[in-house]
Amino acid sequence: MTTIPERSYHVRGMTCEHCRTAVSNEVLRVEGVEGVDLDLEAGRVLVSGRSVDDEAVRTAVEEAGYEVLA
Amino acid sequence: MTTIPERSYHVRGMTCEHCRTAVSNEVLRVEGVEGVDLDLEAGRVLVSGRSVDDEAVRTAVEEAGYEVLA
Repeated sequence: MTTIPERSYHVRGMTCEHCRTAVSNEVLRVEGVEGVDLDLEAGRVLVSGRSVDDEAVRTAVEEAGYEVLA
Repeated sequence: MTTIPERSYHVRGMTCEHCRTAVSNEVLRVEGVEGVDLDLEAGRVLVSGRSVDDEAVRTAVEEAGYEVLA
């Protein structure tokens, strides 16, 4: 069994289900991303994929209109 | 000079610019609506139009996924 690596990002400003859709759609377009899981209340975005460029994920979140804190 | 009648609605749950777009688009499709102005922080939706059905506006807001309080 192989596990898919995950990375967690702290994102500011995601307040509603529209935000969830906006961030998910943008991050899912990043090469190598296999899954995105969001926790709105915690402001957490969990990105899974075997080969994902960290900077590309951050750029995608920012392009969706949100700020990556960490 | 004629003024266009306005009516104010108190709406719960509008948290971000996506919410503004969702509510505006839905209310603007109501027959007779000439303008929609939103105050996200106050949760206020101001609807202008000479002949607008109040119930249709409330239904539109609810269809956008929000609750009309008053």
